[in-house]
Amino acid sequence: MPANLAEIADRFNCELRGDADPVVTTVGTLSGASTNAITFFANPLYRGQLAGTNAAAVVIEERYAADCPVVALVAANPYATYARIARFLHPPVAPEPGIHPSAIVAADASVPESAQVCAQAVIGPASELGESVVVGPGCVVGAAARIGADTKMLARVTVMDRVEIGERCLLHPGVVVGSDGFGFARDNDSWLKIPQLGTVVIGNDVDIGANTTIDRGTIEDTIIEDGVILDNLVQIAHNVRIGAHTAMAAFSGVAGSTTIGERCVIAGAVAIVGHLSVCSDVMVTVRSMVTRSITTPGTYSGGLPADEASRWRRNAARFRNLDKFAQRQITLERRMAALLEAMERKPDD
Amino acid sequence: MPANLAEIADRFNCELRGDADPVVTTVGTLSGASTNAITFFANPLYRGQLAGTNAAAVVIEERYAADCPVVALVAANPYATYARIARFLHPPVAPEPGIHPSAIVAADASVPESAQVCAQAVIGPASELGESVVVGPGCVVGAAARIGADTKMLARVTVMDRVEIGERCLLHPGVVVGSDGFGFARDNDSWLKIPQLGTVVIGNDVDIGANTTIDRGTIEDTIIEDGVILDNLVQIAHNVRIGAHTAMAAFSGVAGSTTIGERCVIAGAVAIVGHLSVCSDVMVTVRSMVTRSITTPGTYSGGLPADEASRWRRNAARFRNLDKFAQRQITLERRMAALLEAMERKPDD
Amino acid sequence: MPANLAEIADRFNCELRGDADPVVTTVGTLSGASTNAITFFANPLYRGQLAGTNAAAVVIEERYAADCPVVALVAANPYATYARIARFLHPPVAPEPGIHPSAIVAADASVPESAQVCAQAVIGPASELGESVVVGPGCVVGAAARIGADTKMLARVTVMDRVEIGERCLLHPGVVVGSDGFGFARDNDSWLKIPQLGTVVIGNDVDIGANTTIDRGTIEDTIIEDGVILDNLVQIAHNVRIGAHTAMAAFSGVAGSTTIGERCVIAGAVAIVGHLSVCSDVMVTVRSMVTRSITTPGTYSGGLPADEASRWRRNAARFRNLDKFAQRQITLERRMAALLEAMERKPDD
Repeated sequence: MPANLAEIADRFNCELRGDADPVVTTVGTLSGASTNAITFFANPLYRGQLAGTNAAAVVIEERYAADCPVVALVAANPYATYARIARFLHPPVAPEPGIHPSAIVAADASVPESAQVCAQAVIGPASELGESVVVGPGCVVGAAARIGADTKMLARVTVMDRVEIGERCLLHPGVVVGSDGFGFARDNDSWLKIPQLGTVVIGNDVDIGANTTIDRGTIEDTIIEDGVILDNLVQIAHNVRIGAHTAMAAFSGVAGSTTIGERCVIAGAVAIVGHLSVCSDVMVTVRSMVTRSITTPGTYSGGLPADEASRWRRNAARFRNLDKFAQRQITLERRMAALLEAMERKPDD
Repeated sequence: MPANLAEIADRFNCELRGDADPVVTTVGTLSGASTNAITFFANPLYRGQLAGTNAAAVVIEERYAADCPVVALVAANPYATYARIARFLHPPVAPEPGIHPSAIVAADASVPESAQVCAQAVIGPASELGESVVVGPGCVVGAAARIGADTKMLARVTVMDRVEIGERCLLHPGVVVGSDGFGFARDNDSWLKIPQLGTVVIGNDVDIGANTTIDRGTIEDTIIEDGVILDNLVQIAHNVRIGAHTAMAAFSGVAGSTTIGERCVIAGAVAIVGHLSVCSDVMVTVRSMVTRSITTPGTYSGGLPADEASRWRRNAARFRNLDKFAQRQITLERRMAALLEAMERKPDD
Repeated sequence: MPANLAEIADRFNCELRGDADPVVTTVGTLSGASTNAITFFANPLYRGQLAGTNAAAVVIEERYAADCPVVALVAANPYATYARIARFLHPPVAPEPGIHPSAIVAADASVPESAQVCAQAVIGPASELGESVVVGPGCVVGAAARIGADTKMLARVTVMDRVEIGERCLLHPGVVVGSDGFGFARDNDSWLKIPQLGTVVIGNDVDIGANTTIDRGTIEDTIIEDGVILDNLVQIAHNVRIGAHTAMAAFSGVAGSTTIGERCVIAGAVAIVGHLSVCSDVMVTVRSMVTRSITTPGTYSGGLPADEASRWRRNAARFRNLDKFAQRQITLERRMAALLEAMERKPDD
């Protein structure tokens, strides 16, 4: 959807500095953008690339605009404005309404005419799709599921019985929503499965990455609130609640019955154990293990950075005796104190 | 399957204390159960919720029964008894025997009349399904696989050639059983694939979570013994053996040729390296890395809990010099000893 | 494909020591091989098993050949030679050309006669398969994808729009290539999706494990170079580049825009954060977290081995105060220095 810079500036509330006429058709990186592309500048580290850019225009903050060698589109939040422009120039593919002849749709499922059900998809009895829903190739929707308008399951997504998904969500390939929670009672030496009778309720505008899994609740429901974004290979256990607009990166997992607040940012490979509560506006950095509830907004860390192997090995070996070293230090401190005391007394002897 | 409390008590060997007549239809949590629901009390932390419960009855240990404000169903292991009652009130959906017309079943595959093969499933040549097996929508079973009676593959499960699965197993969506082990020989700068000629043999009553992967053995087989329970996103490498009734939580992985004993509990995000042996009755806590064989039952840990970021950063920085600090401490200790010795000698001078 | 030892030795450039006539039909382990099987000896730890082997022949280095109790096939790299022999005796199943009637292939997709498209597969418009490509059961190939000759997608693989895959690659079940990168701009309290307009380009001879996910690039492409091998459940984020012949084990992930060099070995559960550069010939050991660029080839570590739980707990508790202990040690060192100086001065007093 090509447009000239005047139209772009107008539509996305940017202040145009420079020639309004060039037509842009795409977006690009600072260093790679061609003369028909728009790019953005958000990180001062890339000042060198800004100077050499061939882009038609750069979305940029006021304070850096003077450094822009091409047309500047001045905006308060260049990255967000860029996102909107990119989506305008490259709109998502619109659904092609209809049910592919190879799809298997239960007789009593509700599929509006605006929805698209792709090849080899399966839709179970009593399930309801909203307007313009896309059920991609190879997706499986169980019984009595409800999928809100404009939600897209890209391919090979599984949505189990009774799961509810809001509007405008995007589910990537391999996602599983509504698998059983990992609930078992010990029964002598065996495990006895606890029936997982709840379901999963997902809000609006939720983005779920490839091969991510979200378990149904045991009795009550697992809840994913509006605007949550989950990366690939994330695990959400039964009875968890993820607050609105929280982000979780790949390999992060939340164990059973834990509640995460709103607007949290959980980096990759973070393990959050069960039955905790993490308040809103918490950031947890990569590879952290959260074992206690967090009640104060802020940043929490738990990962040790890799080091050259031989040094790491020596340090790790010392770690095994850290408590002993600490005790020895306390002993040393006591001896030193006694010594100093003795020496102070000496002159008085 | 509604029942009155007398019938429940009788069927599940509970001692009934209170009115035998009320009919229950479902289960609930202590705090959320309605008057037609059964709940359980297993954790003294929830005493407050017990006092306020509206449940028809509570499955409870003798020692807490006096605190139960409603009908008590006294049992030695309330959680296990609850699991049985929940399953009785909410029995798993029975298979609907038959092969869906969209399923593709090889001419020489063996599918008993009691089995259910759902829409879009694929069953390869010479594979054999037991009685009442369910092959869910979109599942793929390769050639010469054997699936035991009453085993259910819920949806989009892949079982590769020659894999053997026991009876009453439950495989969640996205599970892959029998993918190639990650075996490669270095050949100058390249990797040369080692053919993975073994298969996977899974016992009875095994539960496998969504998107979990189990690789086939290189020459001999990967073995999952009876009653093992695996959460979502678990990885079992080639030639591994997991002992009976062992549990593994999400993101846990066992590398090639390692043997895990019986009744172990491996928490989430635990990495167990290859060619080890872990004895029976071992518990490994969250985010641990097991790099040596474990020969003594007990609990093993390896995860550091997250901390407020600025403090964590300071501690992590010190960790990089832990060995140097330990050496300096040893020096200090020697000096202190020398000093004390010198001072003791002094009076004799 | 049976062969006698003379033929094997000749075909794979081994020096035959012993009887040339026995016919071998398969491979086996040192301890488990039967008399019609070939095995190999590469690890001196298994000397005991070598002495007792019943194999027809052992592929072995010159320096150990004298210890071989059966026919020796002397080779410089026994494991690689074994891999070749195993593949010769057990060649991969050849494709059965043709499109299964249940597969859905877009009218303008290009599928050569030598290719095999299995049951329930879907191939999108304008996609092109090379000669002898296998698209396994339940696989989904999007629009305008290109798959090189002899590449196999085993089952339930998803390859999204415009992805390019080279020749002789092997994609295991559940693999997702070309899902959107996890790119979002903050927009007040919400996240605004950044359109992911690039794609994924995969070289030749790449092996991708079950349920592994590879995201498409934001503007430019995510690149996996020739000969890369990825285990199960690996995550490759947008705009990442993985250099030729690099290996990554299960649960390893590379965050956005990071470049990994050639011939690296990334062990399991390694987290590599975004916007880094890791040079060629780097080995990263299990459970490491890489937070800075690595510019020197070598081995890097970051995982602490699990310990008996009570000792671990004491050490972990001390870790929370490591910085304070270090400061206290520095104080002690100063006092000690002052004391020693004072005592040295004393005699001069």
